[in-house]
Amino acid sequence: MVRRTVDLRSDTVTKPTEAMRAAMARAEVDDDVLGSDPTAYHLESEMAKITGKEAALFVPSGTMGNLISVLVHCDVRGSEVIIGDTSHIHVLENGGISTIGGVHPKTVKNNPDGTMDIDKIEAAIRSPDGELFFPTTRLICLENTHANSGGRCLSAEYTDMVGKIAKKHGLKLHIDGARIFNASVALKVPVHRLLQAADSALLCLSKGLGAPVGSVIVGSKAFIAKAKRLRKTLGGGMRQVGVLCAAAYVALQENIRKLEDDHRKAKIFADGLKQIKELSIDATSVETNMIFFSIVDSSLMSPKRLCQVLEERGVLAMPASSTSVRLVLHYQISENDVYYALTCIKQVVQQIVTNGTAE
Amino acid sequence: MVRRTVDLRSDTVTKPTEAMRAAMARAEVDDDVLGSDPTAYHLESEMAKITGKEAALFVPSGTMGNLISVLVHCDVRGSEVIIGDTSHIHVLENGGISTIGGVHPKTVKNNPDGTMDIDKIEAAIRSPDGELFFPTTRLICLENTHANSGGRCLSAEYTDMVGKIAKKHGLKLHIDGARIFNASVALKVPVHRLLQAADSALLCLSKGLGAPVGSVIVGSKAFIAKAKRLRKTLGGGMRQVGVLCAAAYVALQENIRKLEDDHRKAKIFADGLKQIKELSIDATSVETNMIFFSIVDSSLMSPKRLCQVLEERGVLAMPASSTSVRLVLHYQISENDVYYALTCIKQVVQQIVTNGTAE
Amino acid sequence: MVRRTVDLRSDTVTKPTEAMRAAMARAEVDDDVLGSDPTAYHLESEMAKITGKEAALFVPSGTMGNLISVLVHCDVRGSEVIIGDTSHIHVLENGGISTIGGVHPKTVKNNPDGTMDIDKIEAAIRSPDGELFFPTTRLICLENTHANSGGRCLSAEYTDMVGKIAKKHGLKLHIDGARIFNASVALKVPVHRLLQAADSALLCLSKGLGAPVGSVIVGSKAFIAKAKRLRKTLGGGMRQVGVLCAAAYVALQENIRKLEDDHRKAKIFADGLKQIKELSIDATSVETNMIFFSIVDSSLMSPKRLCQVLEERGVLAMPASSTSVRLVLHYQISENDVYYALTCIKQVVQQIVTNGTAE
Amino acid sequence: MVRRTVDLRSDTVTKPTEAMRAAMARAEVDDDVLGSDPTAYHLESEMAKITGKEAALFVPSGTMGNLISVLVHCDVRGSEVIIGDTSHIHVLENGGISTIGGVHPKTVKNNPDGTMDIDKIEAAIRSPDGELFFPTTRLICLENTHANSGGRCLSAEYTDMVGKIAKKHGLKLHIDGARIFNASVALKVPVHRLLQAADSALLCLSKGLGAPVGSVIVGSKAFIAKAKRLRKTLGGGMRQVGVLCAAAYVALQENIRKLEDDHRKAKIFADGLKQIKELSIDATSVETNMIFFSIVDSSLMSPKRLCQVLEERGVLAMPASSTSVRLVLHYQISENDVYYALTCIKQVVQQIVTNGTAE
Repeated sequence: MVRRTVDLRSDTVTKPTEAMRAAMARAEVDDDVLGSDPTAYHLESEMAKITGKEAALFVPSGTMGNLISVLVHCDVRGSEVIIGDTSHIHVLENGGISTIGGVHPKTVKNNPDGTMDIDKIEAAIRSPDGELFFPTTRLICLENTHANSGGRCLSAEYTDMVGKIAKKHGLKLHIDGARIFNASVALKVPVHRLLQAADSALLCLSKGLGAPVGSVIVGSKAFIAKAKRLRKTLGGGMRQVGVLCAAAYVALQENIRKLEDDHRKAKIFADGLKQIKELSIDATSVETNMIFFSIVDSSLMSPKRLCQVLEERGVLAMPASSTSVRLVLHYQISENDVYYALTCIKQVVQQIVTNGTAE
Repeated sequence: MVRRTVDLRSDTVTKPTEAMRAAMARAEVDDDVLGSDPTAYHLESEMAKITGKEAALFVPSGTMGNLISVLVHCDVRGSEVIIGDTSHIHVLENGGISTIGGVHPKTVKNNPDGTMDIDKIEAAIRSPDGELFFPTTRLICLENTHANSGGRCLSAEYTDMVGKIAKKHGLKLHIDGARIFNASVALKVPVHRLLQAADSALLCLSKGLGAPVGSVIVGSKAFIAKAKRLRKTLGGGMRQVGVLCAAAYVALQENIRKLEDDHRKAKIFADGLKQIKELSIDATSVETNMIFFSIVDSSLMSPKRLCQVLEERGVLAMPASSTSVRLVLHYQISENDVYYALTCIKQVVQQIVTNGTAE
Repeated sequence: MVRRTVDLRSDTVTKPTEAMRAAMARAEVDDDVLGSDPTAYHLESEMAKITGKEAALFVPSGTMGNLISVLVHCDVRGSEVIIGDTSHIHVLENGGISTIGGVHPKTVKNNPDGTMDIDKIEAAIRSPDGELFFPTTRLICLENTHANSGGRCLSAEYTDMVGKIAKKHGLKLHIDGARIFNASVALKVPVHRLLQAADSALLCLSKGLGAPVGSVIVGSKAFIAKAKRLRKTLGGGMRQVGVLCAAAYVALQENIRKLEDDHRKAKIFADGLKQIKELSIDATSVETNMIFFSIVDSSLMSPKRLCQVLEERGVLAMPASSTSVRLVLHYQISENDVYYALTCIKQVVQQIVTNGTAE
Repeated sequence: MVRRTVDLRSDTVTKPTEAMRAAMARAEVDDDVLGSDPTAYHLESEMAKITGKEAALFVPSGTMGNLISVLVHCDVRGSEVIIGDTSHIHVLENGGISTIGGVHPKTVKNNPDGTMDIDKIEAAIRSPDGELFFPTTRLICLENTHANSGGRCLSAEYTDMVGKIAKKHGLKLHIDGARIFNASVALKVPVHRLLQAADSALLCLSKGLGAPVGSVIVGSKAFIAKAKRLRKTLGGGMRQVGVLCAAAYVALQENIRKLEDDHRKAKIFADGLKQIKELSIDATSVETNMIFFSIVDSSLMSPKRLCQVLEERGVLAMPASSTSVRLVLHYQISENDVYYALTCIKQVVQQIVTNGTAE
């Protein structure tokens, strides 16, 4: 019997659709390093339009998009960036901004909703008085949706407030919008409005939108010109990249409208988990396509072990920390898959309660 | 009238074939960051076999492949690499090994054939006696074929000698084999033999072999494990990357055999250029698919201007320096294209001689 | 009338004594870069003995000592250091470990007593499971006394516990002991005991001990060998450095015993400040030679303005943050100076309360 | 019998004079990090005047002075510096500009007289056309006197020509003037004239001038402001640094006039070496206080071995390469010492010729 697989590890696991594959097969392409690939240009133009920015640049990954953005804004030695202490850039991108870019991170505590307190951000900005002892603050980073807060959305108003602080102090604002389309759909606010205060942003097409590969950074023409050069330095310049951009363009056209359904399924999932008294989840915090839950009695089972046992049943999930598990919905997970996964989780938990073991 | 275009700027400009497009459209894929994409795995296994190394890793570009390789071998702060003064890594990769990686380059003069003298390499190795004043030499880089020497080949014997020096001094040897398949075909020596002495190598699939995107680095399992992590740091980890690897695999299967013909066409081209007395070319130096020529009377026209005038006739070429022009053959340039381009060059040169101007 | 000056900005402001000056004038010296200066050697040997470590190295400043130490422990690209969020290295050393060294800081909240919770330290260590996304934790830093906590002391027992965590996870422990002599005197525990669990430490001779210039790092012979090389790279290698070491040796011999009196004067000062109801101070937190106090009604006067007004009366102090002022006692501040400074502060505060202004 | 020692390893080995020691003992000092040490200020003002620059900064070593200068001019990520292939910065400063500063060096061949050909410098400047592939050239470095060329002097006219090239291309010019006073004396041209075309320069006071510790960098006020901040980052900020500056000031006042005699003694030494037919030396190249000579029949003895044998006779010298030995004169070497050292060298060489061995 072929076992069913429900892959909830991330929304990066989607397989390209027939439409995407067909687009790759017929894409008009050219050498995007020596000149400009027409399909890349088409996608970049569309992304600039959607985000309300002057220019856009295709990059192989979200990690590279954030790395380039931070490094372009912090291109002078001795720069510091203000960044959330649970933000993806700080926690999950190998510390590249320091280890590759020499940028010093100044973390501010992320609230449960993914925001940082405005006054804490302002307090973190280095005073010019003490410049002999301090690096120079040059950038603030936000993340929308904020993954480690469970995919919660930052409002346009909050973002504007941070943007105002940035401007007041002559800083730049970068938004890690790897899942900004989810925020846009959940908040019913257009992407360009959510990015209005930002000097640059990263958007991923290979997450909820399902493109096989690729992200895009947006900003002013001057920003993108510097970004293009740094992309080359890092080795992110690709030749006939239009084959990837064609698939990404299809993702952009077809899949934004499916995100709302992902959010609906996430709520169903969260409500189901809430019924399992051995697990703890704040269902009201599920605003988009991510769910974080924890095991009430941590002595029963570690998240790592729970994920291993679930994998035996074809349900793939990821430990988010030493106490919590992360589930991510996407359009290739059906409502039926959700119920199946819930059933598996219930069974596994029951089994543990009964036997004191998952085996 | 649609003008004919003969694009001789680089062998990176090839368009993917129908077979490559079909392969992309049907590629079996998975998330190559969370686990392993089967098509990427397939390509990497094949490349490890071809090169005689333990393991391989797909990267988005040759620049990233070289950057990762140098940085993995020089992962300790205070490292120095010995490198040819006209090598691609030193001259054409944005200085990334220093500006991103903090590795100090010690250049050794490249001879016209792309080699560096063995005794000069050995003399460039830092003595442990003076370590208080010196960085630590950790790596030697070779380039085969050596682009800025006109695509000339390094023999297996030469490479072995450099490898012996490296071993003697406890150094690693990396080979920038962006066009190692050309060297292999021209020398009639298998790729694994040319790389036998190397601890790591980069090979490009998007140059003469015609893949739309992609290169591969090879080495020991330990080297590739470190490389994979650094690829993620730099942002070169891609999700369903199998779509690119599928096309690259086709390139590998179908196009190695076409390289010999590229070399033949390059010789025809070189012979033709030799007939133009206003140009200077050492036809015997054309060993693979690259041609460098210069203008005898440099006051007549700059390489930049010559390329501009040729572009008006649909012949695309690149200035290689302030005195020379570079032409690169590939399988999408026919013998007929070669004769057409030669005619255009002759006409343009004649026009200049007559009019004292290219217009 | 020549106004009296009471300089409470830092214990770095002390002037060298006649004994120190005489020692400089007669110091036996040699080229410490080409070989070893005998007076530097003498001081380094003594410091190794005092700290119970194998070897020691004189450096021009505490900042360089910490920078070298962190960089030696984190000499492989992609390293992360766990460090207190208010620690001197993180807050007041220009972010040099990142901007110069490419080391990524992972901050843990400092408690009011300068410690970090043991479980938070352990939680901050990166799991090898996620190494594809994480930098590698290589080092934990403590600071004893912890300046931004008001110069509070870390006990030997606490330090041992952190050392145990470090060992368990294969990490190194560095102690920024810029004022470790103050901790030793206050805790009545020898310096070597406080550093027992540490792989390396920095100790300053130009703070409470009054040397004109200089700090020392200590550790294993292998650590110091690497440190010496990095000191040269940074430009901290000095020629006849014995002239500085001679003065520092005098400081070491004569002034440790004076620290207890500095602590006593600090308590007097703190008790005096406690009587000023417009100011807020936790006198029990004054464990060594530092005092932090704040203005209860922050609308009355900023720390910066308070310091300016005090300066007009010859009392020099430094704002520690936007809400607090820092005072540091040292052996060139007499008990009489303390009373004088207290009187000035009282007068200035009274004046503000009366006039609503400091002028 | 106490053996006589003639230390010709470097002009950094001089011991401070009584006048310097007395100056240290009575120097007026203050905390140069929190404010400004009056004696440091005095020295820096004098150095600014001597060099004709707006401002100056005391640094602990020549290596730090060069490192800071290169890094301030190249403060934007992706910078390249044009530098002589045998220059001290490139060869003998641990590669710090790359390994610490991320600056990419582009070497140009140094001629035997220490110059680089003007056209080669200009050819090394990166074209803005290829900026996607190139780092950005931001700085040219010269070295006067040029140590590895035997301490030869760069003329004001040559320096001006390089300065003109720099200006034309919007680059900065830094001069490593570790021994610029020697050049000034030998050329009979004031220091400010030799530095006229430079945007910054390093001058050492601890070499021929005999200060125990210290160098100074000079440039515009804006340059020095950035330099001061970077000095703090690197850990080169020192507290009561006036004790060193006082000695350095004496060196500056008393010892410039002695350099001419050092040059005279070097010529005597060179003439003496010329008489030893087993050694090879170009006496006309001895322009200042350095002498490089080689052993004609390299199979007789290595420079390293020759230095060891000489050390047994109390004559200290340093191998300069695998084929040459370096001798440096300074004011604490008498003419008598020169003759003694010459006699020792003759004896040792004679012994080898006779016995085929140095023992």
